[in-house]
Amino acid sequence: MSIILLLDILGTISFSISGMLTALKKRLDLFGVFIIAFVTALGGGTLRDLLLDAPIGWMFDVTYVYVIIAAAIVALIFRKKLGYVRKSLFLFDTIGIALYTVVGVQKGLDAQLPAIICIALGTMSASFGGVIRDILCNEIPIIFRKEIYATACILGAGVYLLLLKTDLSVDLVMVFSGLVVIVVRVLAVRFKLSLPSLYPKEENN
Amino acid sequence: MSIILLLDILGTISFSISGMLTALKKRLDLFGVFIIAFVTALGGGTLRDLLLDAPIGWMFDVTYVYVIIAAAIVALIFRKKLGYVRKSLFLFDTIGIALYTVVGVQKGLDAQLPAIICIALGTMSASFGGVIRDILCNEIPIIFRKEIYATACILGAGVYLLLLKTDLSVDLVMVFSGLVVIVVRVLAVRFKLSLPSLYPKEENN
Amino acid sequence: MSIILLLDILGTISFSISGMLTALKKRLDLFGVFIIAFVTALGGGTLRDLLLDAPIGWMFDVTYVYVIIAAAIVALIFRKKLGYVRKSLFLFDTIGIALYTVVGVQKGLDAQLPAIICIALGTMSASFGGVIRDILCNEIPIIFRKEIYATACILGAGVYLLLLKTDLSVDLVMVFSGLVVIVVRVLAVRFKLSLPSLYPKEENN
Repeated sequence: MSIILLLDILGTISFSISGMLTALKKRLDLFGVFIIAFVTALGGGTLRDLLLDAPIGWMFDVTYVYVIIAAAIVALIFRKKLGYVRKSLFLFDTIGIALYTVVGVQKGLDAQLPAIICIALGTMSASFGGVIRDILCNEIPIIFRKEIYATACILGAGVYLLLLKTDLSVDLVMVFSGLVVIVVRVLAVRFKLSLPSLYPKEENN
Repeated sequence: MSIILLLDILGTISFSISGMLTALKKRLDLFGVFIIAFVTALGGGTLRDLLLDAPIGWMFDVTYVYVIIAAAIVALIFRKKLGYVRKSLFLFDTIGIALYTVVGVQKGLDAQLPAIICIALGTMSASFGGVIRDILCNEIPIIFRKEIYATACILGAGVYLLLLKTDLSVDLVMVFSGLVVIVVRVLAVRFKLSLPSLYPKEENN
Repeated sequence: MSIILLLDILGTISFSISGMLTALKKRLDLFGVFIIAFVTALGGGTLRDLLLDAPIGWMFDVTYVYVIIAAAIVALIFRKKLGYVRKSLFLFDTIGIALYTVVGVQKGLDAQLPAIICIALGTMSASFGGVIRDILCNEIPIIFRKEIYATACILGAGVYLLLLKTDLSVDLVMVFSGLVVIVVRVLAVRFKLSLPSLYPKEENN
């Protein structure tokens, strides 16, 4: 349990820093920077909970709110040096995505929803914070243009559902399918894999 | 019942293809194209159900999800030839709008909401999928700039409420008011009718 | 009670006119102008109620819907002369913000949410109508770039929570903390106060 909490907090920190960096690029003010940090970290789960008609986690447990405020303040102060921790951030971010995916799928299962909807909820939990961040910053969501991790989430979510039908314990299933998300994403970034392009080469620049 | 299901599926197909075409114009990748197809087809009804605090249809009945996936795949493969079926698409789209409008009004009535809110819910069901599509594609929603079918929805929704006060059966009322939406829209497109412009002619280009 | 209703209606009128003016600047059509007027006036409270899983006020009490329609029609007709009432509009707008903030905080308290979440709900009620307005008009929300009133809302919401712990009656607490919002905002505009800039001077233009 405490390991999951730690991973969750690392993921939240990394998501909120990613939001803050986008907001700074857009030259938002202090209020805007904090809102974008929150939305990036909590937006995907909030949308999932709204669709599930479930209580919205961060409204009752304010741990995440304080984590995001602290992360944003620290990152603002050291923003010139964030380049040095980029690799750690990528790692935390990937762990966060893996965790959000698995939690999202499980929430769908708890609500007894069909498999494909559970996969969608997992992927949405992990990726729609970034979608809302980009919309608030007046950009087409990056994940719709240059797929970075949606495929990893979909694969991990599918593996989760498949492994649940085996004799493995739920804990092990979580770990395995989370690792699938992480490995697929790391490989995709390392080998510059992406979805097949829909557009002719010459137009593609 | 089966006729309504058929019309609903035709409308869903047509909405998802319209979403896909917008996404392709924006050069989104495969993931983006699918998300925009979903959002265009299901976004209006989802927003309506969130406001009504009602269960969200597509999360429980996955027919629509599979219809959208199939429509998007077929349309992607034959996308160079979609021009040939443009007229059929317009017809299906219009039928879909009519149906979504009537269903939206009825859901408002079921929740015992005031007449004007029911009209708003009908119009929203039919048109806000396109609004979310345009926002995700970083455009001002087309329906706010060059009104295409909102007026048709509002008129059809109003007729639905009026006819319900007569002795006509609910089925007939649905058909009549759906036809109002279809006829108004077809006439508006055919005779290039639009809302009166708010801006002086010389500025209008 | 009737004073609060009056202030609420003045705030709603002012918010919907602000929405209408933004929509006209974007050359939206009649339908777009009305939708943006609605969203600006009701969007913040709607988002708050969705997060709280509370019934959405304007769906049951249509007073606000008619107020917005009337305000938008009158403002459209006299739009060339709105400059003359700009000061009144600013005053009504500020009163509206103060009221929305206090109501939002109180709704959070009614739902027994933590203090920081109540402050967030108050600020959101007062400011997210404008955020949704700007997103629908394809702009980065103005409140994220050039903070106008979020700080005033946060301060007023904090004062509300502090004063509730004293012996003052709830009515007096509402009035005092509402006045904090109004005074902070008026002073900020008068003396051009804003949050400290996050960007070096020379880049700032």
